[in-house]
Amino acid sequence: MNFAAWMAGIQQRTEDALTTHLPAATVAPSHLHAAMRYATLEGGKRVRPLLCHAAGSLFGAHCELLDVAAVTVELIHAYSLVHDDMPCMDNDVLRRGKPTCHVEFGEATALLVGDALQSLAFQLIATPFSGLEPVRQIEMVNLLAVAAGSRGMAGGQAIDLASVGEQLTVSELEFMHIHKTGALIRCAALLGAHAGGAGPDEIIRLGHFANRIGLLFQVVDDILDAEASTATLGKTAGKDAAQNKPTYVNLLGARDARVMAATLRDEAHNSLQPFGERAQRLHELTDYIVDRPF
Amino acid sequence: MNFAAWMAGIQQRTEDALTTHLPAATVAPSHLHAAMRYATLEGGKRVRPLLCHAAGSLFGAHCELLDVAAVTVELIHAYSLVHDDMPCMDNDVLRRGKPTCHVEFGEATALLVGDALQSLAFQLIATPFSGLEPVRQIEMVNLLAVAAGSRGMAGGQAIDLASVGEQLTVSELEFMHIHKTGALIRCAALLGAHAGGAGPDEIIRLGHFANRIGLLFQVVDDILDAEASTATLGKTAGKDAAQNKPTYVNLLGARDARVMAATLRDEAHNSLQPFGERAQRLHELTDYIVDRPF
Repeated sequence: MNFAAWMAGIQQRTEDALTTHLPAATVAPSHLHAAMRYATLEGGKRVRPLLCHAAGSLFGAHCELLDVAAVTVELIHAYSLVHDDMPCMDNDVLRRGKPTCHVEFGEATALLVGDALQSLAFQLIATPFSGLEPVRQIEMVNLLAVAAGSRGMAGGQAIDLASVGEQLTVSELEFMHIHKTGALIRCAALLGAHAGGAGPDEIIRLGHFANRIGLLFQVVDDILDAEASTATLGKTAGKDAAQNKPTYVNLLGARDARVMAATLRDEAHNSLQPFGERAQRLHELTDYIVDRPF
Repeated sequence: MNFAAWMAGIQQRTEDALTTHLPAATVAPSHLHAAMRYATLEGGKRVRPLLCHAAGSLFGAHCELLDVAAVTVELIHAYSLVHDDMPCMDNDVLRRGKPTCHVEFGEATALLVGDALQSLAFQLIATPFSGLEPVRQIEMVNLLAVAAGSRGMAGGQAIDLASVGEQLTVSELEFMHIHKTGALIRCAALLGAHAGGAGPDEIIRLGHFANRIGLLFQVVDDILDAEASTATLGKTAGKDAAQNKPTYVNLLGARDARVMAATLRDEAHNSLQPFGERAQRLHELTDYIVDRPF
C-alpha cells in the first residue's frame, strides 16, 4: 500500500473510532456531548494518530489497540485546541475552517468540553483491552498524563503565555515547544510502541526519533503560519506575528528556519536506522510532515 | 481515637500528600506550579479524602495508598473549583477565604491550572503502587475518569449551566446533583474500597451508601448557602439565589429541605448495616456532613 492510501486509511479509522467513543449527542447532557463531537470530529490531519499507528506498526501492534491509543492522544489534542482558542488565551474564532467551539457553543460550554475531553481520554486508555497487560496499560496511562500535564503540554502552554512580547533565545523557544507540542507528539509515538509490546531500549530509541519529529513539526508549522493564507490553513494565519509571539521564523528568518527543518528531517531519518525497513511508515511520515501542503 | 482527632489526622495527611505530589513552585513553569499549589493547598474540609479514608478503613486498605487515592480525588475537585469560579462560569472572586485562582493569577493561568490538576490526578493514580494489582488499578483509573467526565462531574456542571433561570422539578435537580457533586463523592468512597481490595458485592453496597451521602452533602450545602454568611462560608454566600439557580431550599422551602436531609441521613446509616461496627468512621462522617458548622 502506498503512503497516501495508508494515511487515508488511518485517518478514516481514527474518525470512525472517535465517532464511536465520543458519547452520542442524544445522550444527556446533549448540548455538551454535541459540542464535544463538534470540537473533535471531521477535523485536522490526525498527525498524532498517524504517528501512533506508524510507530505501532514497527512492533506489530494490534490495529484495534492502536485505534484506542490514537484516539486518546487526539482527544487530549482536541481539548487543548478548544481551551487555547478561548478568549482568555488566544481568542481565536476560526479552527479547521469552522467557528471555534466557544464561538459556536459559548465560553462556559467550551471550558467544559475541554475538561470532559480530557477525562474521556483517560477513561478510554484505562478500558481493559484483551491482550494488553494491565501493568503495561498503567504505564501508558501514566505516560499520557505526564505528556498532557504541567511538565508537558499544559506546561508548554504556560511558558508560551509568559513569552508573549518577550525576546526568547532559540533554546528557550525549543524548551517551550518540547513541552507545548513535542510532549504529546512524543507520547503518540511511544503509546504506539507500548501497544506493540516494545522493550525499554526500543522505547528509548523511538523516543529520540519522536523528539526530532516534535520539533520538526513545530518549525514547519511556524513556516506555514508565516507564509500561508487563512483559507489554506483553515485557521487564522499570521496570528503568531500579530500576537507578537516568538517563532522560529522571526527568530531565525525564513531561510534559516528552512535549514533547521532540513537538518531535523535528516536527524529523524537517521534515528530510525536501527529499525531497518520496518520503519518505512515513520520515514514516510517524517517527509510528509515537512512537505505537507498545509 | 475519637472522630475529631481522626478527622484532623486525615486532613493533615492529605495536606502533606498534596504538598508532596504537587510540583514545587521552583520547578518550571514556576508560575503555573505556584498557581496549582495556591488552588489546592490549605483549603477546604477535605470531605472527599475523609470519605476515601473512612471507606478504605472498612477494608483494611494501606493508609499510604488511601493517601494517593484521596489526593487524586481532591485534585479533580480542586480543578473543578478553579474552572467553576472563572468569569465565563460562576464568575466568583472568593474561595476558601482567599481570592479565586483567576483573580490571583489571571484567567489564562487559571484555565491551565485546572487542566494540569486534572492531568496530575491521572498521573498519580496511574503510578505503580506496591501491593496494588495493576488490573485493580486500571479499574480505579477508569472509575475516576468516568466520575470526572461528561457523564459525571463535568456533565453535571453542564446541566447546572443549562438550568440557570429554569424551573426544575425536584427529580431534575437530583439528576443534576447526582452528576455535579455526587459522582466524585461516590468515586472517593469507591476508590477507598478498591484500595482495600473490596469485592464486587461490597462495592455495590458501598455505592448505595455513597449515593445517599452525595445527595445529603448537596442538600446541606444548599441550606448552608441560604442561611450562612460569606465570612463563615469562606465563599460568597447566597449566590445560588442571586444567580437564580435552583436549590433544594428554593424548591422545597428550608423546612422540607431539612426533612429531606434527615431522611437521607437515616438512609445512609441504614445502608451501612451490612458492614457492622467496621463502618464506624462512615457513620460518624455521615453525621458530620449534616452537623458541620459551615
